Amino acid sequence: MARPILYTYFRSSASWRVRVALAYKGLEYESRPISLIKDGGQQKSAEYTALNPLQQVPCLIIDGATLTQSLPIIEYLEETRPNPPLLPKDPVLRAKARQIAEIINAFTQPLSNLAVQAVVGEWCGNDKKGEWARIWIDRGFTGLEKVLEKTAGKYCIGDEITIADVALGPQIFNANRFKVDMTKFPIISRIVEELYKHEAFKAADPSRQPDCPEELRA
Amino acid sequence: MARPILYTYFRSSASWRVRVALAYKGLEYESRPISLIKDGGQQKSAEYTALNPLQQVPCLIIDGATLTQSLPIIEYLEETRPNPPLLPKDPVLRAKARQIAEIINAFTQPLSNLAVQAVVGEWCGNDKKGEWARIWIDRGFTGLEKVLEKTAGKYCIGDEITIADVALGPQIFNANRFKVDMTKFPIISRIVEELYKHEAFKAADPSRQPDCPEELRA
Repeated sequence: MARPILYTYFRSSASWRVRVALAYKGLEYESRPISLIKDGGQQKSAEYTALNPLQQVPCLIIDGATLTQSLPIIEYLEETRPNPPLLPKDPVLRAKARQIAEIINAFTQPLSNLAVQAVVGEWCGNDKKGEWARIWIDRGFTGLEKVLEKTAGKYCIGDEITIADVALGPQIFNANRFKVDMTKFPIISRIVEELYKHEAFKAADPSRQPDCPEELRA
Repeated sequence: MARPILYTYFRSSASWRVRVALAYKGLEYESRPISLIKDGGQQKSAEYTALNPLQQVPCLIIDGATLTQSLPIIEYLEETRPNPPLLPKDPVLRAKARQIAEIINAFTQPLSNLAVQAVVGEWCGNDKKGEWARIWIDRGFTGLEKVLEKTAGKYCIGDEITIADVALGPQIFNANRFKVDMTKFPIISRIVEELYKHEAFKAADPSRQPDCPEELRA
């Protein structure tokens, strides 16, 4: 079977989630970097738009299919390569894991991503971009910290890594980049510290990607 | 078994998705309206925040569990009440259905919702809120229309209703409200027209909810 091909950008947190899931499940793949910065954004090229009309990374070519959107890609990997699992067995815990993943995927991340920042910069001035990102990451993490009080063990849901952790880990990069005060979020901070000890999170880190600039390399 | 309780707001597209899924699967439930407008936003009350720390609707109490985030709730219903299904059997088609649902859930909707509009209004003036919403709904639908060229039959994925349609249907309300030019999106328009003939979409419509003001009732 052909190796999967991942269209990815080293700093994209959605790409990063899929890199974690692929590494966690031990799947080898070929990285094809799509720079969201160079050439006015390589994701807008006709060639890439044919793969993903939304002009977003990641995109995974696997089993002859072209898949986009990070969480649906991870659900596909879970259904076709169930071991090791990224969802608990119990339906309520599965719902909780997905809930946490969506707090990142459908709230914190989309409101602070590059495309949105670009419009905020244009409308309000570039000096407002950081403040904008901080508002949404802070609101998302404030709610998430409360959710985790009831669900967390070593990781977001008890003591096993799930899709919730796969979504949370990369979001910290953006939180730090936009100077979110992480001292308000002790459970999130503790879980993320734990996650970064895991090989799958190390392998997926932006600093280890082929498109990471030399000066930012691990 | 106790009837599920749905915390819902008649105009919230995320609540609306869950109402469609419950109706599609023939599940009776009790509606508990949470107004996002009255009392400065009832979702911010201590009582509701205890149910959903993110202060968003919907929230579903079912099988003794408190579930939030619309797509994880629908996945839970699918796993515990699989018939009639809202996901295809084939893993690639399941991924495509979830991909379309996420284009709405993690892109179009969060960027145009009330909380974001409030910040845009404050920073840029209330007259910019419509323009902001139109940018993101237009970008999301432009990509989605291309995706649907390859996947659509009568509905988003072939001829059966899936989670993709459940997400798409309610988004049209916001598209129309913010005067998005829908003539650019003939496939989306055709599918939505088809969806609104279905009893589950009729039952979930804002105009039929107990918290719909008298003058907007069907």
